[in-house]
Amino acid sequence: MMDVSVYRIATSGPEDLRGLKELVDKGEINPEEIIAVLGKTEGNGNVNDFTRGYSTFVFRKYLAEVLGKSEEEIGKKIAFVMSGGTEGVMTPHVNIFTVKADAEGEESDKKSLAVSAGFTRDFLPEEFGTMAMVKEVKRVVLELIDKAGISAIEDVHFVQIKCPLLTSDRINDAQSRGKKVATEDTYLSMGYPRGASALGIGVALGEIEESSLSDEVILNDWSIYSNIASTSAGVELMNCEIIVMGNSTNSVSKFRIGHSVMKDAIDLEAVLEALRNSGLEFDSLPGPEDKKRIVNVFAKAEASPDGYVKKRRTTMLTDSDIHHTRYARAVVNAVIASVVDDPMVYVSGGSEHQGPAGGGPIAVIIRQKE
Amino acid sequence: MMDVSVYRIATSGPEDLRGLKELVDKGEINPEEIIAVLGKTEGNGNVNDFTRGYSTFVFRKYLAEVLGKSEEEIGKKIAFVMSGGTEGVMTPHVNIFTVKADAEGEESDKKSLAVSAGFTRDFLPEEFGTMAMVKEVKRVVLELIDKAGISAIEDVHFVQIKCPLLTSDRINDAQSRGKKVATEDTYLSMGYPRGASALGIGVALGEIEESSLSDEVILNDWSIYSNIASTSAGVELMNCEIIVMGNSTNSVSKFRIGHSVMKDAIDLEAVLEALRNSGLEFDSLPGPEDKKRIVNVFAKAEASPDGYVKKRRTTMLTDSDIHHTRYARAVVNAVIASVVDDPMVYVSGGSEHQGPAGGGPIAVIIRQKE
Amino acid sequence: MMDVSVYRIATSGPEDLRGLKELVDKGEINPEEIIAVLGKTEGNGNVNDFTRGYSTFVFRKYLAEVLGKSEEEIGKKIAFVMSGGTEGVMTPHVNIFTVKADAEGEESDKKSLAVSAGFTRDFLPEEFGTMAMVKEVKRVVLELIDKAGISAIEDVHFVQIKCPLLTSDRINDAQSRGKKVATEDTYLSMGYPRGASALGIGVALGEIEESSLSDEVILNDWSIYSNIASTSAGVELMNCEIIVMGNSTNSVSKFRIGHSVMKDAIDLEAVLEALRNSGLEFDSLPGPEDKKRIVNVFAKAEASPDGYVKKRRTTMLTDSDIHHTRYARAVVNAVIASVVDDPMVYVSGGSEHQGPAGGGPIAVIIRQKE
Amino acid sequence: MMDVSVYRIATSGPEDLRGLKELVDKGEINPEEIIAVLGKTEGNGNVNDFTRGYSTFVFRKYLAEVLGKSEEEIGKKIAFVMSGGTEGVMTPHVNIFTVKADAEGEESDKKSLAVSAGFTRDFLPEEFGTMAMVKEVKRVVLELIDKAGISAIEDVHFVQIKCPLLTSDRINDAQSRGKKVATEDTYLSMGYPRGASALGIGVALGEIEESSLSDEVILNDWSIYSNIASTSAGVELMNCEIIVMGNSTNSVSKFRIGHSVMKDAIDLEAVLEALRNSGLEFDSLPGPEDKKRIVNVFAKAEASPDGYVKKRRTTMLTDSDIHHTRYARAVVNAVIASVVDDPMVYVSGGSEHQGPAGGGPIAVIIRQKE
Repeated sequence: MMDVSVYRIATSGPEDLRGLKELVDKGEINPEEIIAVLGKTEGNGNVNDFTRGYSTFVFRKYLAEVLGKSEEEIGKKIAFVMSGGTEGVMTPHVNIFTVKADAEGEESDKKSLAVSAGFTRDFLPEEFGTMAMVKEVKRVVLELIDKAGISAIEDVHFVQIKCPLLTSDRINDAQSRGKKVATEDTYLSMGYPRGASALGIGVALGEIEESSLSDEVILNDWSIYSNIASTSAGVELMNCEIIVMGNSTNSVSKFRIGHSVMKDAIDLEAVLEALRNSGLEFDSLPGPEDKKRIVNVFAKAEASPDGYVKKRRTTMLTDSDIHHTRYARAVVNAVIASVVDDPMVYVSGGSEHQGPAGGGPIAVIIRQKE
Repeated sequence: MMDVSVYRIATSGPEDLRGLKELVDKGEINPEEIIAVLGKTEGNGNVNDFTRGYSTFVFRKYLAEVLGKSEEEIGKKIAFVMSGGTEGVMTPHVNIFTVKADAEGEESDKKSLAVSAGFTRDFLPEEFGTMAMVKEVKRVVLELIDKAGISAIEDVHFVQIKCPLLTSDRINDAQSRGKKVATEDTYLSMGYPRGASALGIGVALGEIEESSLSDEVILNDWSIYSNIASTSAGVELMNCEIIVMGNSTNSVSKFRIGHSVMKDAIDLEAVLEALRNSGLEFDSLPGPEDKKRIVNVFAKAEASPDGYVKKRRTTMLTDSDIHHTRYARAVVNAVIASVVDDPMVYVSGGSEHQGPAGGGPIAVIIRQKE
Repeated sequence: MMDVSVYRIATSGPEDLRGLKELVDKGEINPEEIIAVLGKTEGNGNVNDFTRGYSTFVFRKYLAEVLGKSEEEIGKKIAFVMSGGTEGVMTPHVNIFTVKADAEGEESDKKSLAVSAGFTRDFLPEEFGTMAMVKEVKRVVLELIDKAGISAIEDVHFVQIKCPLLTSDRINDAQSRGKKVATEDTYLSMGYPRGASALGIGVALGEIEESSLSDEVILNDWSIYSNIASTSAGVELMNCEIIVMGNSTNSVSKFRIGHSVMKDAIDLEAVLEALRNSGLEFDSLPGPEDKKRIVNVFAKAEASPDGYVKKRRTTMLTDSDIHHTRYARAVVNAVIASVVDDPMVYVSGGSEHQGPAGGGPIAVIIRQKE
Repeated sequence: MMDVSVYRIATSGPEDLRGLKELVDKGEINPEEIIAVLGKTEGNGNVNDFTRGYSTFVFRKYLAEVLGKSEEEIGKKIAFVMSGGTEGVMTPHVNIFTVKADAEGEESDKKSLAVSAGFTRDFLPEEFGTMAMVKEVKRVVLELIDKAGISAIEDVHFVQIKCPLLTSDRINDAQSRGKKVATEDTYLSMGYPRGASALGIGVALGEIEESSLSDEVILNDWSIYSNIASTSAGVELMNCEIIVMGNSTNSVSKFRIGHSVMKDAIDLEAVLEALRNSGLEFDSLPGPEDKKRIVNVFAKAEASPDGYVKKRRTTMLTDSDIHHTRYARAVVNAVIASVVDDPMVYVSGGSEHQGPAGGGPIAVIIRQKE
């Protein structure tokens, strides 16, 4: 049997290892069992957000030292998915996922948290946001579902991907080889890989027919989307790092995951639904005991492409001072934080093909009742 | 008897008069009865936010034309309180307050919405954010409570003030006369007048002892605050424009107001409490019929001075790219919008001495049941 | 003969009329002779820059009052080209152009400043940045060259255009009619009309073959450009307002104009060349007497599309906090200001098809020697 | 004799070591001789700029590996001064300073580049920007002048300091111990240590009487300043790292340094004067051969405290979207880049007590003629 644990650790900056070190030093976390580090770092979450790379660099170096391996080896063993942008009241933090492969316990009907992590090949700049990415992501996601021991597709509740983005240098590189990139605008170049990765997840999960997709559909037809995908772009990598989360009868984890889909950025009902789907039972709003059982909430946020929320005009898309992904994160985090009474929840921006236009998937991990 | 009405009108830009014009042309609003225009405009809400001045300019010009008066006369008759900053999903809009002095009806025990508006004298730059402002604001607020026919101090639920701020030119002006200003940082200069105005309200309402105040207390001792004050700074004026809102037996208004105080930016309970205080009756969350009765919610937002919310670190005060008032508005608006299912609610930033540190007053106007 | 004058007036804000009023009140400017107001206002120069609209609104209202006409009539008589963005040390100001049609004097070989202004028809959102715009701009520019009495194409030195941009509402409008817009990103939507307008100028001036153009060329083939065009987008209009400047033997103006083209944002040589082309004579750098004769410098600025300047990497295109047009204006203004010893020079951002990629036209108006 | 070299290396990001590695691998740089790394990294240059810490982390780790020492040892041996903010066209880069203590050659009258680097003790948050900092900086600067073998104070041309700044956590820490910090605004907290460090340099160099200073003078009396100081604040340290640069007869360096002082941000004359002071000889503007000899230019930039440049209003201090240090860097870099034809010059923002108000020191290192 597999045992899966999740540790949510507040950080005081992108380089802050103290929380993790303490848990490792106390023996609470066995670093050999770490398969993924999923963090929120305090950059702008956009192209020139170096807090993601900084944090990845620091965590990888530490784990290399503690495990006596090279940083390159660690990079191939552990997925580092740092998502930038802690706007509003969002607290910077990391989530450490550990998997103990041979835990004691017997298989039963009870489904508990199962997690696996892996990597695609490196992509060329001209492949970012194209079908090449969709297909490679699909391939790896299917492998990872299997690896996590999740037997039914409906038991997959969240697939998190970190994908690359275009910079001036990468665009120049592709163009020097006579290749066309998805867009020459570096900020917009975050959306294409996010969208393509999400579609790859949707295809893997059977939500989307692969035959309905083409390069032209990506970032164009918003009616096609995954309800499980959460993808985030960063300058610090050239491949996709993938974390699959679900429930499995193969797992003896103390934790459980559930999810729902926010229809817009202030969809309070969907937050409550996700909490219930994870296993919490409450009437109208979760009570203090329920809240204590919540380990973390993971959600995607974006400005609605038409600029409207509940048929009301917003200014997110016409504000040239602050990119709309920044506001979207602040808003969705605030709504969730107000319900769970804790601003340290994971919200990532830019939900192209992740949930309906203007909305996004939301997953919740809770501690199971003893 | 007095009859008071409120009209909430979405705008498509700071210069958009269409909604008001339509109501005036249809005879629904009698422009002679307008006493205050309270709007959210889509600038940055900070020093160089000219959307406030633009909107004020356009609305004043229109009302001057329609009432056959000079713009100067209109400026002395109607309070134009434009609050900048519609971050996140907040919908730009204006609230038009009308008062019909000699409405039919008889005084009863029933208390309904009563509103009055007025002006302080112009201040010198060196007076911004000092006791001179506290005292003059107190004087006018007391006059306005009387004018609104509000007999008990506990029936005052919201006092909105627009106050001035310092610019480079105003600082140079004061210094050329050998005077010291509260701060030489133009952005920080928004906080001092907001704080002093709020203290003036608190003194008028008996929440604060005037003797406990001095220039040194302003923006220093956060334990002193008003639970009713909402103040907002702008470059477009040199005096304070004040709107007092409460309930009165003298009013036959169809509306009613209530309030509460948010302890922090994600205080969902306080939002629910304010809704109940206004007269809505519901169990856990308001239902569709309750929401229909809500005319608008008015709240103040700020980053907690220590940077923490629910003992969690936030990055609002260390983000040098985006001022914390912008995030604070996005967060508080999102929390309220998620409850009332409508992003078009009024949230203004910078709640110095308005509610506890990191929190702020919240008021709700509802339509009374027939 | 035509007499043309230019007045450069510092402003203290978008609504500041004091400088113009003073000149009108003193009789120095005859408001009947004003044909164009060309200003730099202190907004972000991007989509949600309302300082342009505010300034236009205020100046139009004043001129309507002083000339006893409706604001609509003034809008058809006088071109108001407000360009947003006074980054770095750029001083906000307006340039007032006056034309006296029947001035005394006799035609000679001497060429002096000649200016004319006019308007295109309103465009539909789907026409922004397309050949429809190119053609209509060409038509009006040719009319205006004639109107200015400029007989040779090489005597045209600067053509300034204010063109519209897309907002969420305009995009939704086009889409609701089944039309496709040039881009759905509102910030990028400023570039398309700027580019199309510039190409229209280039065609009118014979710099560009109309047959070489198509919708696909616009914002794609940077090798096609005008050396005379300066275009600027704003939310406050739906048509193009055009000002043509050159020298003519028909003019007895005290002023003269010249120009050059900056190859990149720090092309000091081009600044010196433009000063010389206008008629200043100096060796290496202009001296104090030369500088006194300079009335204003008008330049376009942009980040090089490949992100490089003098083969050095810049971060303008990968900075997701601040749009590159803002930096470009700050840089070009600084270079010019350091030469002419005055930060109050006109620099406008986004020079698509205006000068070579990364560069832009630069024109200088000087007072002629008596 | 001492031999001093300077290597200016373009970087493709804060983590880019390729340029340095190449020079080390080729044997051009002996890593044992590196005493200081002085870089411009592409963050916002303000409080939440983590590119400085990231770059420091990466360079320190590399040098520790290559020199077979711990990172802590390297941190005590080599000064890492990373200055954030490459606004406008400024190219991110690092300057590597090497010193070979026992170089061949004989002392003569010829003065060549001499450099030394060192560290103050760690400061407590409440000491940032106070006389405690002034005195400790003075002490270390005097030691370093001696260490560099600079015999006359007028041969010191540039002293670069990296100093700490306040964060929410550091402010809370001081306050929890009952201590008062210089300011509770984290952005403003960058100025106090910069100012105090600069005054420490001025006292060490005899430009300023220590007796004229007090905590009250710091960031208050702008008439007191150093013409040699360049200080830069960062979140990544608690002490000051100091680099002293001058010329010495003890040095056989191929390089030489000179300096001047910019009176304002567009002071072209001062740029030319600094070039001449370093040893270049030219008439009006430097020619191609002169430019080739320039290794780097180091300058400080700030918005004038009164908001005016050449008696013209600028909007740098009233722009609440973008901090003035960002614009100041863009402007000063542009002016210098336009003269030396290269945007890869070092400009750091916030020149409190460094040069006159609104201006700042500027130093130039050139290759000496063979």
